[in-house]
Amino acid sequence: MDIKTTYPSNNYTIHVGESILHHQIEAYSKKYDSIFYIIDSRVYDLHKEVLSFIKSPVLTRSGEASKTPEEYIRVVESLLEKGIKRNSLIFVIGGGATGDAGGFSASTVLRGVDYIQVPTTLLAHDSAVGGKTAINSAHGKNLIGTFHRPKAVIYDLDFLNTLPESELLSGFGEVFKHMLLHSRDKAKTLIRDTENGILIPDLKKYLIKGIEIKRDIVTEDEHESGKRKFLNLGHTLAHALEYKYKFPHGQAVILGLYAMMTISNEFYQKSIFDLPFYYEYFDQLGYPLHYLKEMDIDEMIRLMKQDKKNQKNDYIGFILMNDDTPEFKEIEEIKIRQYLNALKESI
Amino acid sequence: MDIKTTYPSNNYTIHVGESILHHQIEAYSKKYDSIFYIIDSRVYDLHKEVLSFIKSPVLTRSGEASKTPEEYIRVVESLLEKGIKRNSLIFVIGGGATGDAGGFSASTVLRGVDYIQVPTTLLAHDSAVGGKTAINSAHGKNLIGTFHRPKAVIYDLDFLNTLPESELLSGFGEVFKHMLLHSRDKAKTLIRDTENGILIPDLKKYLIKGIEIKRDIVTEDEHESGKRKFLNLGHTLAHALEYKYKFPHGQAVILGLYAMMTISNEFYQKSIFDLPFYYEYFDQLGYPLHYLKEMDIDEMIRLMKQDKKNQKNDYIGFILMNDDTPEFKEIEEIKIRQYLNALKESI
Ligand SMILES: NC(=O)c1ccc[n+]([C@@H]2O[C@H](COP(=O)([O-])OP(=O)(O)OC[C@H]3O[C@@H](n4cnc5c(N)ncnc54)[C@H](O)[C@@H]3O)[C@@H](O)[C@H]2O)c1
Ligand SMILES: NC(=O)c1ccc[n+]([C@@H]2O[C@H](COP(=O)([O-])OP(=O)(O)OC[C@H]3O[C@@H](n4cnc5c(N)ncnc54)[C@H](O)[C@@H]3O)[C@@H](O)[C@H]2O)c1
Repeated sequence: MDIKTTYPSNNYTIHVGESILHHQIEAYSKKYDSIFYIIDSRVYDLHKEVLSFIKSPVLTRSGEASKTPEEYIRVVESLLEKGIKRNSLIFVIGGGATGDAGGFSASTVLRGVDYIQVPTTLLAHDSAVGGKTAINSAHGKNLIGTFHRPKAVIYDLDFLNTLPESELLSGFGEVFKHMLLHSRDKAKTLIRDTENGILIPDLKKYLIKGIEIKRDIVTEDEHESGKRKFLNLGHTLAHALEYKYKFPHGQAVILGLYAMMTISNEFYQKSIFDLPFYYEYFDQLGYPLHYLKEMDIDEMIRLMKQDKKNQKNDYIGFILMNDDTPEFKEIEEIKIRQYLNALKESI
Repeated sequence: MDIKTTYPSNNYTIHVGESILHHQIEAYSKKYDSIFYIIDSRVYDLHKEVLSFIKSPVLTRSGEASKTPEEYIRVVESLLEKGIKRNSLIFVIGGGATGDAGGFSASTVLRGVDYIQVPTTLLAHDSAVGGKTAINSAHGKNLIGTFHRPKAVIYDLDFLNTLPESELLSGFGEVFKHMLLHSRDKAKTLIRDTENGILIPDLKKYLIKGIEIKRDIVTEDEHESGKRKFLNLGHTLAHALEYKYKFPHGQAVILGLYAMMTISNEFYQKSIFDLPFYYEYFDQLGYPLHYLKEMDIDEMIRLMKQDKKNQKNDYIGFILMNDDTPEFKEIEEIKIRQYLNALKESI
């Protein structure tokens, strides 16, 4: 399955399928003088055989550890050491973290070299699309980066077979978010298809749909001045929870989505989401909803206010769902406190 | 004097004049929520009074030391520490080094924040225009960076009064290069006006002309796929000399230009440049031409081949002047060796 972006120019294709890696790498490599690989070291270990054709990869620390400034500099120096040129191509193979950091390396080495995302996690169906690159700062996640579109995305679903349960749950958070951005009905179909657990073959059509939903939003608003904000559905609280309790991003997103549902019901004063229904579903899949009970509200508010997307004092920006329409709302701190208290008590 | 860029969109103005800093900073600051300053620490010390209105500057190590990866990370973290937001504006005040590194910080913090170049050296009439940002790698100069246009350039010539002689000589190298790119006649007028030394008031019109020449080239070829290469006139050997002997960039450029003149005469087999005339002029101004006598040709060739602009083995790319027309030529290593030997012997 090929999904194409629809920018006015410089479009790229997102290839989704099983066992598509070798063929696609070969096809894209033809146009370039030399090829480089940045690979998550865990992925490289787990998929050694499939990746054995790669002679001299730049291996990065697995997961989020690839997004430190030090690791970024090490990777760039390593590309230069190996002789990268402006007309080289870089394949970035790994989860969202490797994709973000590898994309940043590609966008800054020699002032920008072409690169292709090869996402290997469920979550990365999201992060690999849209051209946002990033590393982390001592002051917060993703505070350093660029906008730099890949030349293609090769999403070979075979990689997903080695994902541990917790990463499946994490990636599923963003899949669920994309369906919810479409409509509650779409989310409910997904719920039906995952009643007995998260299985990759069942998810394929939702991954494709999720990629299309994200593609449509980022095409309209590449640099996040408007609509792209909607992709932060559930993320405001998620970032704070993730920072505090250190559990996988997409799992925090599910908790953030549940909080968003509560806040949307309160804010619009109507029953948009059947909260017990969603609660039970998330709980049954194994999401750590208890953090929503434990969290310290003052601390969460302090962390949310640090977010780079918050520009106004004493207000926090949230994406809410007004029935099936996402809306950006700046909500007074005092109101947020009230909503989060209600949420805590309801659990 | 205001010079405007002529891109299809996102144009900016280069303001050139005496005592224009305060007024321009005030005018540009109006549109932004918060203002940040990255300043070369030596410039800050020398111009404390003029800059005293700045409350909490991010000071960087003076000159080239601002272009290490470590210093880059320190500056970005410091901007974040001080609370930079997406709708902030950064003024980058300093020479070409601070401009390059500060521009890179601006282009990557929060995935890109608006910035204004405030060049304080003669050389920076060149580097502040064109939107190239950079830091240095362990493998060479300017190997990490972005293309990111400033929102304006404020070139207040008052800064230049504190420049030491060696920096005047350095900056003058790029002024001379720009005139030569225009024509030998233009270069000769400049020579006439600087017979008795380099004086800023005499240079003003050449600075403006130099900025216009650079502006026209970078507008036509922002990302250096064609014509922008011409700005590397004299730079191929200059980079190698600079790397080896550690003297100011623009002084190395003058030596590189002299080498280019010799090579152009040889390559085109005609007397394009009156070598003794230029030699005497450069010598009298105080350029260290003796390095051209001392240099080890093997070493220079090895260094030139490492340059990121060289894509072909056994060939080195040079910009030559065919009378008054710059041309890019890939010249065989064996020929280069011959030309450089001739150059050495002629000194
Ligand atoms: N750029 C964007 O638009 C965007 C969007 C959302 C999230 N993100 C970023 O994505 C990151 C999260 O992505 P992620 O969840 O993929 O995290 P990740 O890259 O950290 O991967 C999670 C873990 O799974 C391992 N892993 C990767 N592929 C595997 C496989 N096939 N089998 C077994 N293990 C594998 C990794 O080594 C890591 O330990 C965050 O850094 C987040 O900021 C970016
Ligand atoms: N981006 C581009 O297109 C481009 C083009 C040419 C050169 N460059 C870069 O520019 C740099 C060289 O620029 P530069 O020569 O301005 O070097 P610089 O910034 O290193 O400044 C030279 C020295 O002068 C000091 N200084 C600066 N302003 C001063 C003032 N007003 N009075 C007294 N001292 C002052 C600095 O502290 C430094 O010690 C190099 O790093 C080069 O790579 C970039």
